[in-house]
Amino acid sequence: MERLIVTYRLSCEADESPRQKALDIAYEQTVELPEQAVSPELAERIVGRIEELSPLSGDRHKLVISYCLDAVGDELTQCLNLLFGNISLKAGIRIDAIEWPARLLQAFGGPAHGIAGLRELLNVPSGPLLCSALKPMGLSAQALGDYCAAFARGGVHIIKDDHGLANQPDAPFQERLERCQEAVASVNARSGGNSLYFPNVTAGYSELPKRLDAAKRAGCRGVLINAWVTGLDALRYIRDEFGFAIMAHPALTGAYFQPAHGIAPQLVLGDLFRLAGADASIYPNSGGRFGFTVETCEAINDALRRDLPGIKPALPTPGGGMDVRRAPDWVRRYGPDTIVLIGGSLYRQGDLEAASRQLAEAIAQV
Amino acid sequence: MERLIVTYRLSCEADESPRQKALDIAYEQTVELPEQAVSPELAERIVGRIEELSPLSGDRHKLVISYCLDAVGDELTQCLNLLFGNISLKAGIRIDAIEWPARLLQAFGGPAHGIAGLRELLNVPSGPLLCSALKPMGLSAQALGDYCAAFARGGVHIIKDDHGLANQPDAPFQERLERCQEAVASVNARSGGNSLYFPNVTAGYSELPKRLDAAKRAGCRGVLINAWVTGLDALRYIRDEFGFAIMAHPALTGAYFQPAHGIAPQLVLGDLFRLAGADASIYPNSGGRFGFTVETCEAINDALRRDLPGIKPALPTPGGGMDVRRAPDWVRRYGPDTIVLIGGSLYRQGDLEAASRQLAEAIAQV
Repeated sequence: MERLIVTYRLSCEADESPRQKALDIAYEQTVELPEQAVSPELAERIVGRIEELSPLSGDRHKLVISYCLDAVGDELTQCLNLLFGNISLKAGIRIDAIEWPARLLQAFGGPAHGIAGLRELLNVPSGPLLCSALKPMGLSAQALGDYCAAFARGGVHIIKDDHGLANQPDAPFQERLERCQEAVASVNARSGGNSLYFPNVTAGYSELPKRLDAAKRAGCRGVLINAWVTGLDALRYIRDEFGFAIMAHPALTGAYFQPAHGIAPQLVLGDLFRLAGADASIYPNSGGRFGFTVETCEAINDALRRDLPGIKPALPTPGGGMDVRRAPDWVRRYGPDTIVLIGGSLYRQGDLEAASRQLAEAIAQV
Repeated sequence: MERLIVTYRLSCEADESPRQKALDIAYEQTVELPEQAVSPELAERIVGRIEELSPLSGDRHKLVISYCLDAVGDELTQCLNLLFGNISLKAGIRIDAIEWPARLLQAFGGPAHGIAGLRELLNVPSGPLLCSALKPMGLSAQALGDYCAAFARGGVHIIKDDHGLANQPDAPFQERLERCQEAVASVNARSGGNSLYFPNVTAGYSELPKRLDAAKRAGCRGVLINAWVTGLDALRYIRDEFGFAIMAHPALTGAYFQPAHGIAPQLVLGDLFRLAGADASIYPNSGGRFGFTVETCEAINDALRRDLPGIKPALPTPGGGMDVRRAPDWVRRYGPDTIVLIGGSLYRQGDLEAASRQLAEAIAQV
């Protein structure tokens, strides 16, 4: 029988027994009852099974628990809960690795487009892809549409809304959608290019389907979403009901990336985003405004692109303060199946079209 | 003009300037551009305004930023993003307090039922309320239904699914819903009591409306949901589209409750859960299996019950390993507008009906 296998790194206080902490996790995440209140049959079948518990350096221990799939069912929501629901409220527990059974891979499904599919939509069969963001909030829809046109003329492949552009009065969603999609379509028509505009559809439950309908009607092929804000399953919903290419933004996820407590970034922004349906996953690149190491970034890249039976690979999308001058180096390091996301470093140059063209040429030569 | 006022506690590294860190937050959470790329008009109007920056003890600083509501719009999703979206990926930033402008209070709306409304549904006009959880996963729907009946006979007011019961094969949602709702209705009919069964409706976007429809058809009056797993706005959706009383579970939220980085528990499980529509908010009580101090619990209680213009108060629901023997003390401490959530300590006693009755009598006498 297939099982879900989770590797944790425990950090134990002086008065904490690693064995007891391991048992607590196995019970807390399943039956949520003390051992003495659980029948031997359920203790054997449903409670997580400790497969390994071994000391690492210092106060740390490696713990491997396997879970019967009867504890998950087939739903992403309950899977998230089983992985880190209640233990998020404890301390010193970090999920370092997950081995996905085929049944859950199939149930969650992964990207609809994947790397090859998104390349086809963009008509860019090989080489690095370039993305930029429309901002800042406070501008009108018309001004953002003008930026969109400039990026498209400069050869940016994907032009996305900044993830903080929602439905504020300066550039309401519907108006921004129309201006930006018209702008990009008009440039494409003249240039023969194939840039795509991805509106930010992040919204509440009642509003999200309306935003997606509107994006469909406007002719968009992909969308941006703050996946942890909406709940991760929104990706599956968008994939299954609307068929858009999906670029997922990591807003709100950072709290899980604590050194001693949480979930490893490559599992959230790699495995989970990909399995839920992200075709591209944005993460804060090393050397920018955020603190990821290059090793973390490469672990995310690997999680997005590695072989998983029946699951298409997704595109790493490093961003968050990357300098245009360093972009070619990052492409060399991360490989061509990467979307380079650069915003501020283009805006700082003033002429968006010229700055974009120069960047597009620089990374195409890598 | 009303503004959203957020108080942060910064923890600064030796090489970090508190003033620069404050400015970074003000820009990161709004325009997401470097200062030199933002026009003076937008810097003044849209970028967060630093209202106070003052040293606390050690490496800590108090920071107050006010935000123009044009940066939020009226949506809970963008509000969450503005509060902690990108800065979740940084370090040493903790939100300690939020002052809510009337416009956002009105836009989010808060509980539909609140304390008085939930008491009316339960026909318990005063005194502490008692809740227990159906578990463990692995039992059949029939077995869980039998537990439900025993709790109802014992006088438990709200009998909820354990938050890990989703749609697993041992007790699929629909079957469990029917068995448990029938069980509680049948006991109520015989006893003249008014216990309510709250099924756990946590599910993905396509499935959630079906679960809610089913719960409505079965005659349920309230539901349980893992609000951070589904995305917080699910509460508003359930409130507005289905009218259920909502009990919100804190699964996955714990990662935000780090000492130096995150969001204070009373803001997530108090303010945010309440504003999104929770009539009752479950949190891990002090002295149980989790690490909240009694001060944190009281801060959550206060956030749920305090006066907020136009927003009904919600019921604190301390749980997570509370011992029946200590329950009266907690009621005395937290006051009668509290739902005491006790599971394991009843299951350990074997006879659920007798154990529940004894507990119900003990807390009624406080």
